[in-house]
Amino acid sequence: MHSIFLRFVVSAVIAALGLSLAANAKPPAPTVNADRLNEHLASLAKFGTNPEGGVSRVAYSDFDIAGRAYVTQLMKDAGLTVRIDAAGNIIGRREGRNPKLPAIVLGSHTDSVPKGGNYDGDVGVLGAIEVAERLQETGVALRHPLEVVNFTDEEGSMIGSLAMAGHIKPGTLDQVSHSGKTVGDGIRAVGGDPDRLESAQRHVGELEAYVELHIEQGAILEESKTDIGVVEGIVGIRRWDVTVHGFANHAGTTPMNRRHDALVSAAEFVLAVNRVASTMAGRQVATVGVIRAEPGAPNVIPGKVVMTLEVRDLDGATMQQVFDLIRSKAGEIATAHQTPIDLVEIPLGIEPAPTNEAVRRIVADAAKSLGLSSKFMPSGAAQDAQHMTYLAPSGMIFVPSIGGISHSPKEFTPPEAVANGANVLLRTVLAIDGGALSR
Amino acid sequence: MHSIFLRFVVSAVIAALGLSLAANAKPPAPTVNADRLNEHLASLAKFGTNPEGGVSRVAYSDFDIAGRAYVTQLMKDAGLTVRIDAAGNIIGRREGRNPKLPAIVLGSHTDSVPKGGNYDGDVGVLGAIEVAERLQETGVALRHPLEVVNFTDEEGSMIGSLAMAGHIKPGTLDQVSHSGKTVGDGIRAVGGDPDRLESAQRHVGELEAYVELHIEQGAILEESKTDIGVVEGIVGIRRWDVTVHGFANHAGTTPMNRRHDALVSAAEFVLAVNRVASTMAGRQVATVGVIRAEPGAPNVIPGKVVMTLEVRDLDGATMQQVFDLIRSKAGEIATAHQTPIDLVEIPLGIEPAPTNEAVRRIVADAAKSLGLSSKFMPSGAAQDAQHMTYLAPSGMIFVPSIGGISHSPKEFTPPEAVANGANVLLRTVLAIDGGALSR
Repeated sequence: MHSIFLRFVVSAVIAALGLSLAANAKPPAPTVNADRLNEHLASLAKFGTNPEGGVSRVAYSDFDIAGRAYVTQLMKDAGLTVRIDAAGNIIGRREGRNPKLPAIVLGSHTDSVPKGGNYDGDVGVLGAIEVAERLQETGVALRHPLEVVNFTDEEGSMIGSLAMAGHIKPGTLDQVSHSGKTVGDGIRAVGGDPDRLESAQRHVGELEAYVELHIEQGAILEESKTDIGVVEGIVGIRRWDVTVHGFANHAGTTPMNRRHDALVSAAEFVLAVNRVASTMAGRQVATVGVIRAEPGAPNVIPGKVVMTLEVRDLDGATMQQVFDLIRSKAGEIATAHQTPIDLVEIPLGIEPAPTNEAVRRIVADAAKSLGLSSKFMPSGAAQDAQHMTYLAPSGMIFVPSIGGISHSPKEFTPPEAVANGANVLLRTVLAIDGGALSR
Repeated sequence: MHSIFLRFVVSAVIAALGLSLAANAKPPAPTVNADRLNEHLASLAKFGTNPEGGVSRVAYSDFDIAGRAYVTQLMKDAGLTVRIDAAGNIIGRREGRNPKLPAIVLGSHTDSVPKGGNYDGDVGVLGAIEVAERLQETGVALRHPLEVVNFTDEEGSMIGSLAMAGHIKPGTLDQVSHSGKTVGDGIRAVGGDPDRLESAQRHVGELEAYVELHIEQGAILEESKTDIGVVEGIVGIRRWDVTVHGFANHAGTTPMNRRHDALVSAAEFVLAVNRVASTMAGRQVATVGVIRAEPGAPNVIPGKVVMTLEVRDLDGATMQQVFDLIRSKAGEIATAHQTPIDLVEIPLGIEPAPTNEAVRRIVADAAKSLGLSSKFMPSGAAQDAQHMTYLAPSGMIFVPSIGGISHSPKEFTPPEAVANGANVLLRTVLAIDGGALSR
């Protein structure tokens, strides 16, 4: 080999890595190949493209299966050894220098909601693959094994991460998914084995850490012009069925002062929910998303109104406090109008899942080292990571969602923001591998 | 005939009429046979009895047809000559002493809503027949002809009274009624002829007056312990489709202060409607009876809410004033929350229909002459009478609805209240026949 050619190769590698050998004696951390990552995102978007420009790649559908095959190939191209666990999770693994150390796990999902977009989940899986590929091509050998997981059915049953945490609820396999298949049949269709789901379970100590890159799905980063969200945890979710009992009557013959209009009380309840959640200090949210008046005719005073109430927060005590205030307001409304209000909780079992403090710090440091601004914030949306917090020190990296839009074909995160997130992920992996968790 | 038997007959008649020949030289007005009237009500209730104890005798159904046959027979028993007009109205007629005079018309309907009760409409038709029968058996010959009308399909299309007034709207015959038949096929099934509906039309001058006895369908009479309602008119009805445009977003990731929650605005609208109608002087009513949030999921902030708004009053200007105030409040709510609110009127063409002042006075005097208390009030419910106001001086007599309940198997008016109403109807007929309208 000619020395001039060798020098060219070295220069090219230096350029590709964005390094300046002169600047520092210790070789600086590599950065991802932003173009390749965004090309992969664009290619994945072709599986299940919907007319509005997003994807409808619901779990277990033919599009999901095709998308998973594409992801599997990308993992192999990145030098990962791929297996599918009993829950259908696609797991790409790269061994570390020390075979006794637990794996650093990165993951997210590539299934979508019906009429979804091209970023929710996809950014995390493809970002993690890009990290693995970049480590491979720059010849960085980690001490720990590295695993990249594409979780099964995040948008529906969350079966992939639930199975890994050993938290599957009875009846889940029989639920009918958006694909039309039951979850059990779906798992079989993607190469898993619903009869031995327990084999997918991982245990505390088996994983060094779990880190997930994801779009924010809210507008906080964009509006505050912040590059990176350091996720403090995934909020808990509690949900109630709310029923207001009034008295249905003729809307023509019943004077205003003789009414027990269930909808008038329901309207006061909706405003009370909004006021309680808006005025308490903190970042809790409370939402009435469903409402129905019965009998539901223009000429009949509603005798009954059925609603949903949902409360989310990172702190269980705060959620209870929000609900207690709402319940107290509901009692006042019920008494004032003689319209009893029932609040019946629907057990979801979605507890707040705080991320690991050390991982948060590592993520924030990684952002800083890249010259990126960052902000601590909760994830208001459910995430695979919430189940992984039970298994390992976990963290999440958020990148901005333009307009806060997600679960929509209009979902968008700019290519440079995607690359920023992947770079923070890469530096976070390097830091954890270097022992930062115990510092 | 033995004279003792003759004396017995005379005594019996005197007793039956509740007269005291000694008390007054001029023979007092007859009163109805309360037991017979209430027996007829009980018998009519057997056609279409529902398990809850009311009737489901929807227009054009087999039960309606059977009930109409029973009513026809009662009319014949009362000495009326019965015909069915092209709209299917059953018209029983008794000629008057002066063949040149226009008829005094009494009427109501015997069809019911699905799961209806035993009084709405029935009391008016059977009360009118009782008046005719009583006049016949007491040998009272009126100057004017008397007609008793059982109107077709009051609870659905109101086709009977609309046809008589010449107010049928295009497309009515093609509407599907609760019986499953179209209105046109239904009219044919009850003996009418939808192809020549115009022949059912009556004209101004052909009728001396129209008077309808009806249950109140509200609780005003019962709560004020009043025997008789003198109806000032039938309220107009205006209806709007209301759409609130917010922005659907993730209920977990969207902070409270970044929301454009269509349901929060809708709740303020519902309360504004209630406040406007409750606080303005007058007896107007305004109701939101239907509400739906979209997309309608517990975890999505409503992006759109669709509601109905209905306003009723006896005065068109008041209705407009109520609507203008509501529209103004809607504008304020829309601006405050950046959630545009559309109000689109659904043309019903139900104008307020005031009753005739002279008829009101005659009804009030009749009640007074019977020692009954009375109260002027609007009819908040739609009535056949509202169409008859276009044809003749019209009035309505209300009797109490216990609990204000109607359109329900629980509908109830005590037997003595039914008799009170029929007695007021009888005296009203006698007064009108005696020329009271022009006094």
